[in-house]
Order: sequence, then C-alpha cells, then structure tokens
Amino acid sequence: MTTQKRTVIYISDGTGITVETLGRGMLTQFDGIEFHAIRYPFLDSLEKAAQCLEQINAINRREGIQPIVIMTVTHPEICALLHRGQAFFMDLFDTFIAPLEQELGSRHTRAVGRSHSQSGPQYDTRIAAINFTMAHDDGIADADLDYADLILVGVSRSGKTPTSLYLSMQFSLKAANYPLIPEDFERDQLPQRLLPYRDKLFGLTIAPEPLHRIREIRRPNSQYASLENCRHEVKAAEKMMRREGIKWFDTTSRSIEELAVQLMQELTVMAQSTPNDESLIVPSP
Amino acid sequence: MTTQKRTVIYISDGTGITVETLGRGMLTQFDGIEFHAIRYPFLDSLEKAAQCLEQINAINRREGIQPIVIMTVTHPEICALLHRGQAFFMDLFDTFIAPLEQELGSRHTRAVGRSHSQSGPQYDTRIAAINFTMAHDDGIADADLDYADLILVGVSRSGKTPTSLYLSMQFSLKAANYPLIPEDFERDQLPQRLLPYRDKLFGLTIAPEPLHRIREIRRPNSQYASLENCRHEVKAAEKMMRREGIKWFDTTSRSIEELAVQLMQELTVMAQSTPNDESLIVPSP
Repeated sequence: MTTQKRTVIYISDGTGITVETLGRGMLTQFDGIEFHAIRYPFLDSLEKAAQCLEQINAINRREGIQPIVIMTVTHPEICALLHRGQAFFMDLFDTFIAPLEQELGSRHTRAVGRSHSQSGPQYDTRIAAINFTMAHDDGIADADLDYADLILVGVSRSGKTPTSLYLSMQFSLKAANYPLIPEDFERDQLPQRLLPYRDKLFGLTIAPEPLHRIREIRRPNSQYASLENCRHEVKAAEKMMRREGIKWFDTTSRSIEELAVQLMQELTVMAQSTPNDESLIVPSP
Repeated sequence: MTTQKRTVIYISDGTGITVETLGRGMLTQFDGIEFHAIRYPFLDSLEKAAQCLEQINAINRREGIQPIVIMTVTHPEICALLHRGQAFFMDLFDTFIAPLEQELGSRHTRAVGRSHSQSGPQYDTRIAAINFTMAHDDGIADADLDYADLILVGVSRSGKTPTSLYLSMQFSLKAANYPLIPEDFERDQLPQRLLPYRDKLFGLTIAPEPLHRIREIRRPNSQYASLENCRHEVKAAEKMMRREGIKWFDTTSRSIEELAVQLMQELTVMAQSTPNDESLIVPSP
C-alpha cells in the first residue's frame, strides 16, 4: 500500500501560528497520510489572495487531488476570493463568526490579527516577565526572588529552563529556576537561598535513562552524565522534594506546553489575558 | 448603556492553549462585551466532564445567560456529555473532524493531545535550539555562531531577546542575538565577530520614543535612557544596517509572534513540523 500524500495550505491574515497548531492537531489524528504544509501568513490583501488562489489551483492540477486549506481570514472579500479555489476548506473564522454574532447580538468589527497583543501594559508585563526569567535562569541571580511568581527546582537538565521560558513567554509569569546539585544532596538540604520562598517552589524530575541520554550529549562519558550518577541525583532530588513538601512534575513524557499549563493549574493565578478577563484555570480534581 | 458581560469556558483534552488563542482572536472582534474566561485544560475523563457540565449549568443559572463554550475534545462520549450543558458551543474538533474524515477517506484515531510533540528527535531539536539561543543571547558567547540559523542585531532593548527566544521555542531555530553598541557606531563598523556571518544577520529597530520609555524603566534618568541618546543610537544603527545591506524590521508596533513569522518568511527555511512535512512559508510579495 502506498502512503497517501496531501498538501495542506495554512492561510491567515495574522501570523498563522494558531491556525496551524490547531490544524496540525487535527491532521495528526489521521495515520498513514503524509501531509506537506505550505503557509501563507499575513495574507491581508486581494493581491496576495489572488496569488494564493493561483497556487491552490496549481496544486490541485499538479497533484490530481484538491489540497486541504485551513484558514482564518477576517476580510470577507479576501475570504470569498480564496474560496473560489479548488480545495477542501476548513475556514475557522467563517464557520464560527456568524453564529457567534447571532449569539452575542453584536456585529464583529473585522479587525485583523488581534490575537497577539502588540503594545500597552500587557505587552510590557510580558517583556518584563521574559527579562526576569532570563536573569533568573539556573540560579544565576538570586536577587529579586521576592518578585518571582514561582521558582522551579530540579537536577541539571530536568527541563527547568525551557519550562520557565515558556511560562514567561506565554503566561507572562516571572518564572525563576534554581538547580539542585550534588552538594545540596550531600548536605541533604535545600539551597539556603531558597528557604524564604518555600511556597513558590515547584519541582521538576525526569527518569534517569532519558536524563543520562540528554547529559551525554552535553558532556560525553562524564561522571555527570553516567547513568549511575543520574539515578543517584534523581533519587536524591525526589527524596528531598518529598520531604520538603515541594510538589513536583515528571518531565519525561510531558511537553513544555503541558508542564506549563499544569504549573498554571497549581498556581491558579491570573493568566495573561485581556484586561477585563479575570482568568481562571480550573485545577484537575 | 451597560457593558454586556459574558463567561467564556475553554475546554480541551490537551493544554487548551490553541483553542484559547483562537477563541480569544474571535472574541476580540466584538467590542463592548466583557468576557470572563474559565479554563478546563486536560479534560480527559467522564468524571472531569461531569464536574465541568455542572459548572456550565451553574453559570447559566447564576448569570441568567448561557456561557460560550469553546472546545476541542477528541473523545466522543466526553464530548457528548459536555454538550448536554446549557451553553453556546463552538466545538472545533467536532465541527471539522467528520468532514475531514470524509475528505481524507480515513477514520481519525482518537488520539488525545497530539498537537505538542513530547519526545523524539523533533523534541531534542527544539530543546537544543532553546539552549543555543540562551547561550547566545546578547552576544554572551560568540563561539559556535557557525551553527546559528540567524543572528539578530540591534540596539539594546530593541526586542532581540524575546524574538530570539520565540524563534527557538516555536520554530526550533538556533537564533543568536548580538547588540549594536555606541562603540560600534563610533567606529562606524559592524562588530568584528559578526563579519563572517553577514548572510545570517537580520536587524531589529524601534522608534526612539518607546525605546526611551523602555530604557527609563531599566536605568532611570541615565544617559543610556535619554531620548536624545535613543534617537542617536537608532539613527546610527539604521544607517549601519542600510549600508551593510542588513534587512531589518521595526518592532515598534509588532508583536513577538509577528516578528518571528516575518523572519521565518525571510528565511523560508524548514519550520519545525511533522517529520513528513516539508514545510514552506511563502514570503510576502
């Protein structure tokens, strides 16, 4: 049996990041089909739409099968022009906006690309969070930990840095991180500087085997990377976190996004959101 | 006229990040309505669905108007249970998956939460990109610039760090950044270390007024932050980039996401994507 191949075209009048993430989530549900993606971000003029339309029809002719078009475009004329193409359309905006207008008893404003905030206090908060997180990566700085929204602890390469960065970038949280190192395990105590912030500490852990693999890339054939040492550090870190009552998450089979949202559930803090939006993440039961 | 208030409930069997970004993009199209968000990530059992259903109906009773539910849930029974609630449903998965099955001539696999990759070579590439970007922030390290996918240059606080981090996090690009400082303008030359990498250089610039405001937060009343100095640095940086043929972007009214995608359009490189997916971003005409 040959694998089916299919071209997917993502079209957006904004960045197209959201529409692609959603589309990809749906397409990965279909096994045995090879999807080839083409992206048209910032498609915001009839001229660009006409070029894209040509491309859609060219693909249909060349491949002998119509491409899948996944799109969000606010402007009705641009939208209509694209729909003349020979394709299977998943038009997110078009599908939901009319029913939503009816439900809300209000007409939409046709403003393009409002999903990412660009300036103003929200944006400043986000940039401040990113800067804070960069400055408090890997225990570099321990000044200002008072201002941290949370502090991630864990052994080297357990996933603290990417998770902290994602929390700051996506949720505008001031996320510091601090390593647990062999000296801490010998003393069998949390790093002294973290003691005032016990209520802000969350742990990350990881299975020894993948940790070993990750550390080998960094320092091949070192004591640091040896499976035996990884086993020892992970065990010691988990023991310490258990004793200190630090809630921890296993990063072994979780994506950065999943870890970040689970930490948000723990915090049940205000997420970065529109100013009128008292945001709430409901913790899992 | 009183502002209309409306509760929005985001439900996902994954992180809910995508469904919320999409939902928020649509809701910001409606002026004069105050939306209050509640999030149910990782809703992946009938037990959690029953609790959520209760909450939906309680909100409907309390507010006297049905909440908006924006959801992606793959499991059909969980989905059906939620739909018993008194709400206005925007069910992304449910709306598109059946037509997509028909179009692809294939049944979907009902795998939950596949939109973020969790392990394997793609994930390693992403983590490696984040680590590279962290290590090459603000000209910290200039070893290994050979391996950079791109190097952002610009004056201090022009947006290099957040943009680099986003490029690594979202697109798995090794994005270094290097500051242009007053000494470079005095010599009227690019930093020596960047010369071998001219084809990887992209510039960021920013209007002097917002730059002044941002720098004032960092170092109030300094020469560094003065409007006069900001004007001088921006002008000198733009002159240098123009002369050196470095394409640059103005970050003044662009979000991190927009900048990142525009840089991707410039690179027209392979985006992080499924392994079978030869990705292409079509550059703007």
